[in-house]
Amino acid sequence: MKVKVEKKILTANEEFAEKNRSIFIKNKILCLNMISSPGSGKTAILVRTIKQLKGKLGIGVIEGDVQTDLDARRISSARAPVVQINTRGGCHLSAEQVNLALKKLPLKKIGCVVIENVGNLVCPSVFELGEDAKIAVLSVAEGDEKAAKYPEIFIRAKVLLINKIDLFDAGAAIDFNIKRAEKHVRKLNRHIEIFPISARTGQGFANWCRWLLESSKK
Amino acid sequence: MKVKVEKKILTANEEFAEKNRSIFIKNKILCLNMISSPGSGKTAILVRTIKQLKGKLGIGVIEGDVQTDLDARRISSARAPVVQINTRGGCHLSAEQVNLALKKLPLKKIGCVVIENVGNLVCPSVFELGEDAKIAVLSVAEGDEKAAKYPEIFIRAKVLLINKIDLFDAGAAIDFNIKRAEKHVRKLNRHIEIFPISARTGQGFANWCRWLLESSKK
Repeated sequence: MKVKVEKKILTANEEFAEKNRSIFIKNKILCLNMISSPGSGKTAILVRTIKQLKGKLGIGVIEGDVQTDLDARRISSARAPVVQINTRGGCHLSAEQVNLALKKLPLKKIGCVVIENVGNLVCPSVFELGEDAKIAVLSVAEGDEKAAKYPEIFIRAKVLLINKIDLFDAGAAIDFNIKRAEKHVRKLNRHIEIFPISARTGQGFANWCRWLLESSKK
Repeated sequence: MKVKVEKKILTANEEFAEKNRSIFIKNKILCLNMISSPGSGKTAILVRTIKQLKGKLGIGVIEGDVQTDLDARRISSARAPVVQINTRGGCHLSAEQVNLALKKLPLKKIGCVVIENVGNLVCPSVFELGEDAKIAVLSVAEGDEKAAKYPEIFIRAKVLLINKIDLFDAGAAIDFNIKRAEKHVRKLNRHIEIFPISARTGQGFANWCRWLLESSKK
């Protein structure tokens, strides 16, 4: 019974994902689905990315949160169009929610839509939203074995951003070895692009923003 | 349809939670359900707690992970009885899984069972496992606004452990204000106990371990 219903939910979701895909193709928009644990720095990464690409790539954001519009306000202050979705307990965004949000974004004026999913390394991984690529984010404070323990998102992501590398420079005692993290991830996904970055200092953003520009369709 | 089935799943879960509660009462065992994002330091906290309370309170552990037995091995090396559950994609532990795991723990010899739930700040909050208390864990690297954004666990927890406070001493640039975090949490839950700790250095463990001893039933 449970399995059947889950299949139904997934199928309904896939239909909306397909609608979203058509919208992105029609408008030549690159769509990214950003997935990570709470507090890995997704919003901070977005704010710096938006600023760094101003004039080169217009980015619209769909903010998924269980509650509050704190993240949408941060995006808004970077002067990017943003739509907030509150899931009110829901642990992931659905393609239908994204479909509704897309109606509120100025699609003609932007080249990229980033969906910041609910902070959750497990559930959002298996719900397609119509995106071109999933972007996984991991902060160095979380430990370098996360890919082994939570494989689904690392199997599916095209890019992994390893954030907060400025913590190394601060001399904090951080048990995170970038080489070891990469090894865990590559075991699951040979072709994933990995960019170590710091949303605070901007380290590594040149490479990440180059990838974004090269992947955009406009 | 979806809502009905979710209700059924929750009810079946509640029946097993009730069975687990009876087991804990019969064996005078304090049961804690530890919930946090991936990488907040749940296992490291457990390892130090087990060592610090050796001879005073015997702790058995049920380790919930999507994949791997990495965490169970860490607990095992602290010489505590441990049972690993792999959810294979599942985003939370169920009371039935805990019920099966309990059969493998030496309940007569221990005074406390800690269930380390799957790293996920959203889904595990609403599935009762029969525990006496939920323990929320937040690392200072995750940001101090998490209670506002992910309220469910903070509403339900009896204790909040704010981990990795050693990062402050290291002089790392961490946007986390303990007073602000407490304010967000207390808005949802006036009676929650909050212990700032470091599993690395042991700071704050005296208070946390005192709470554990005072809450134990043996």
